[in-house]
Amino acid sequence: MPEANPREIEAFLAEAFPQIADLNLRVEQAGGRKARVRMPIGEDNLRPGGTVSGPTLFWLADLGLYIAVLADLGTEAAAMAVTANATVNFLSKPERADLIADVRLMKLGRRLAVGEVAIYSEGKDDMVAHITGSYALPPAKTG
Amino acid sequence: MPEANPREIEAFLAEAFPQIADLNLRVEQAGGRKARVRMPIGEDNLRPGGTVSGPTLFWLADLGLYIAVLADLGTEAAAMAVTANATVNFLSKPERADLIADVRLMKLGRRLAVGEVAIYSEGKDDMVAHITGSYALPPAKTG
Amino acid sequence: MPEANPREIEAFLAEAFPQIADLNLRVEQAGGRKARVRMPIGEDNLRPGGTVSGPTLFWLADLGLYIAVLADLGTEAAAMAVTANATVNFLSKPERADLIADVRLMKLGRRLAVGEVAIYSEGKDDMVAHITGSYALPPAKTG
Amino acid sequence: MPEANPREIEAFLAEAFPQIADLNLRVEQAGGRKARVRMPIGEDNLRPGGTVSGPTLFWLADLGLYIAVLADLGTEAAAMAVTANATVNFLSKPERADLIADVRLMKLGRRLAVGEVAIYSEGKDDMVAHITGSYALPPAKTG
Repeated sequence: MPEANPREIEAFLAEAFPQIADLNLRVEQAGGRKARVRMPIGEDNLRPGGTVSGPTLFWLADLGLYIAVLADLGTEAAAMAVTANATVNFLSKPERADLIADVRLMKLGRRLAVGEVAIYSEGKDDMVAHITGSYALPPAKTG
Repeated sequence: MPEANPREIEAFLAEAFPQIADLNLRVEQAGGRKARVRMPIGEDNLRPGGTVSGPTLFWLADLGLYIAVLADLGTEAAAMAVTANATVNFLSKPERADLIADVRLMKLGRRLAVGEVAIYSEGKDDMVAHITGSYALPPAKTG
Repeated sequence: MPEANPREIEAFLAEAFPQIADLNLRVEQAGGRKARVRMPIGEDNLRPGGTVSGPTLFWLADLGLYIAVLADLGTEAAAMAVTANATVNFLSKPERADLIADVRLMKLGRRLAVGEVAIYSEGKDDMVAHITGSYALPPAKTG
Repeated sequence: MPEANPREIEAFLAEAFPQIADLNLRVEQAGGRKARVRMPIGEDNLRPGGTVSGPTLFWLADLGLYIAVLADLGTEAAAMAVTANATVNFLSKPERADLIADVRLMKLGRRLAVGEVAIYSEGKDDMVAHITGSYALPPAKTG
């Protein structure tokens, strides 16, 4: 069983990162080294040219990895996890449709979590972007 | 001589990417496979916790590479260049001070530009983040 | 149907890269944007400490991507494809067992192929290494 | 003053990694978060086509980072450092000339060292390859 469920994670993010409230991210699934996060793309958060910027995709992926770590370690234990590095490949222009980030942790070690994120536009087969990233985990509390 | 100078690049960015106007980026230098970009960090664009988010650093680096490409190829020829991939290493928490992105193109080929960006907080020696990235270049027009 | 099947690809590699003959790679599957490559790990190619070096894993992954590209584009069209960049995450020490590289192309464009490789030790669940990489494709011949 | 000088590092590598003896690497400089490593390219280690393989460049870069860490932390403290991840950009075909790897550590933290490596062919200006990589450092012994 995950340490934190999707609703707990959304509540935690809303409090810890109020600046991303307007992204309206939805944690659809989290736990078991996986997560699925949806980012609605509506008239409001559409960019000129009708597309989503690369840094926004990066943000979605980075948060997706964080969410998978929060789910398995708990929001208290993992809140201070920080991105150590990340590699993003931009593969196709996102459609004007919700973005879905499928997250998978490939390693959840004592000091480092490593995962990958595949971002799709809802209803399309072509991957929009692929990200691998590492999170440095805070030392576990003992006692 | 660069194809586009810092003022021309700033004017081009303001028109092409109005959504980043509030980052107040300043192109301090551009051309000869290099660029230097300043991002002011004031009360206004300070995040909770007094720091700058990872995706914002990524954005600064990505734009820095684009600016170096624009300078050498010209805003018309390079406008449609798109990020193919990027790797970011986060190294230290940025201070509350202007961020400086030092950009260097390591390759400016016919199809691909590859560069690196070192981001510093003004007045501090420790690097805040390091990014390498590739831009796919549009086919050159033949006349 | 793939342009080149596993046996054709093995024959091509043996002729084009005689220096890797002693790796004894086996192309178990190739085509449809996927490939599976086996690297036998016996007494002979075991390193001191009983492990496989990072660069050898990198080599296996890089070849795996090349094999997937060869399968879909054909050995003639894709022979001159060259690695543009790659990111490798080392996740766990490989066991003394055959290594299996599972390759997936996420994009097979006109100019660039982008894929990922998951390397496992046979019979173990933990991923040994994960690699993403880009191959620059030679211009298509027009006839 | 570095903890280990170039001769001490070469002696350590020869004992710890006998399998790379035939690369004939020379540690020309090491310490102060920098290193310079030379790999002779002679008739003997020339590949078919007269070039150096990508994985060999990766090997050189990976070792270069390790050498810079060994120099600053000492061969005893840092021997067990392991590569966590690396990104390599291949930029130009190496000439038939010695390869020079210029290493710079951008961060030398308690748990992680992060650095970059620029590889050149001796006497040529164009960079052959650029690598960034992270080494996970063993926990410091406390006395």
